Amino acid sequence: MTRFFVEKEVLASPEIILDSENAAHAKVLRLRAGEEVLLCDGQGREALCRVVSSENMTLEVLEQRKSETEAAVRVSIYMAFPKADKLEHVIQKATELGATEIVAFPSARCVSKPDDKSLNKKLERWQKIAASAAEQSGRGVIPRVTVLGSFKAALSRAAQADTSILLYENERATTLKMALEAKPLTTVSLISGPEGGLEEREVEQAKNAGVQICTLGKRILRCETAPLCAVSAVMYAAGEF
Amino acid sequence: MTRFFVEKEVLASPEIILDSENAAHAKVLRLRAGEEVLLCDGQGREALCRVVSSENMTLEVLEQRKSETEAAVRVSIYMAFPKADKLEHVIQKATELGATEIVAFPSARCVSKPDDKSLNKKLERWQKIAASAAEQSGRGVIPRVTVLGSFKAALSRAAQADTSILLYENERATTLKMALEAKPLTTVSLISGPEGGLEEREVEQAKNAGVQICTLGKRILRCETAPLCAVSAVMYAAGEF
Repeated sequence: MTRFFVEKEVLASPEIILDSENAAHAKVLRLRAGEEVLLCDGQGREALCRVVSSENMTLEVLEQRKSETEAAVRVSIYMAFPKADKLEHVIQKATELGATEIVAFPSARCVSKPDDKSLNKKLERWQKIAASAAEQSGRGVIPRVTVLGSFKAALSRAAQADTSILLYENERATTLKMALEAKPLTTVSLISGPEGGLEEREVEQAKNAGVQICTLGKRILRCETAPLCAVSAVMYAAGEF
Repeated sequence: MTRFFVEKEVLASPEIILDSENAAHAKVLRLRAGEEVLLCDGQGREALCRVVSSENMTLEVLEQRKSETEAAVRVSIYMAFPKADKLEHVIQKATELGATEIVAFPSARCVSKPDDKSLNKKLERWQKIAASAAEQSGRGVIPRVTVLGSFKAALSRAAQADTSILLYENERATTLKMALEAKPLTTVSLISGPEGGLEEREVEQAKNAGVQICTLGKRILRCETAPLCAVSAVMYAAGEF
């Protein structure tokens, strides 16, 4: 079913007229009177609607409900700024895979870091990528993309989750499975480094902040592959598929 | 440790001189006498070597052994031809994640399919992508990239695995977990469709061939995301990390 993201307030009314951008999209899709569509507020609520008029795209609300496509487990991805457009790739894929938020931060070996000037524009772009991926994959929530100013800030925020994990290629003893099977999965933070990896002292810092250090196996994953592999595994472990 | 892929026969000798391409790479890395490197035949055997002379890149073999970075479970990825460079993306990432082979095939809704003329050139390029990803991720085996001529051929080959699975967005009852936990994971086939999905009759064909139809959850994954999510889950389920 086609889904549109609308402002939270819009969902409350019994009859809805699609705004210009959504209406244009509906016209492209040739939606006709009688067809059903889904309107989502991007925060987990949605309305099942029927098209009343395809002229001005008026919809009648049939049912208000909680979104049915969100994972019960809430996964936050903390990723050190990678080079080029890899962060965009991770935002798109992590959204499809069901992550709740993507948090980018600088770490010692980050080669690329957006300057303050370009940051707002980039954040806007990243948020749009998340919205578009959420729409395509049928999410009820648009993941929030956030930028933090330091590795320390990322650690202390990530450590607030019930399960907080740092993915580290030099870890040998603790597997992701050990960390995920230790307790019920409610909120999970997954931290990963940039192309050059995290420094040992950063991994120590994470340990001291209460974060578990885990391996993703014997092969070295690229910095954009590691968080996506891990979020897939978390969703699998949480019984999502 | 730096690793080089060499011909199988090379590994047998007690002293090895790197060939021109590998030697050039070794020079770029400024390898010096005394340093240790790993030579792999790309088929699961490797030799731990020490640089004797960095002039002509002569190596002394310290130990011959089975590669230590290969997964015990053998995963084959069967992917319907996607548009643009998505197959390249899947080859690279599936290699990192530990897949044994990537098999591409045409299905009813494939929009893009290489013609016979360009196929050999493309296969060569795809195999190179697998080799390069294998080197970077520390694999002992270079996954083979194969092209089959029909969906039927793909099905009958995929069904030979101990566990053969088709990822289908309209499946509701059977989860990947159910299929993976049914028996020990030895050889696994993961089949997935193109952008427009597989047709219902193709899914029926797969069922008849003995393939299990599984969901990857409530969200719709892009055609390049589904196999990578699934191979991550298989590796996790098999105890790789």
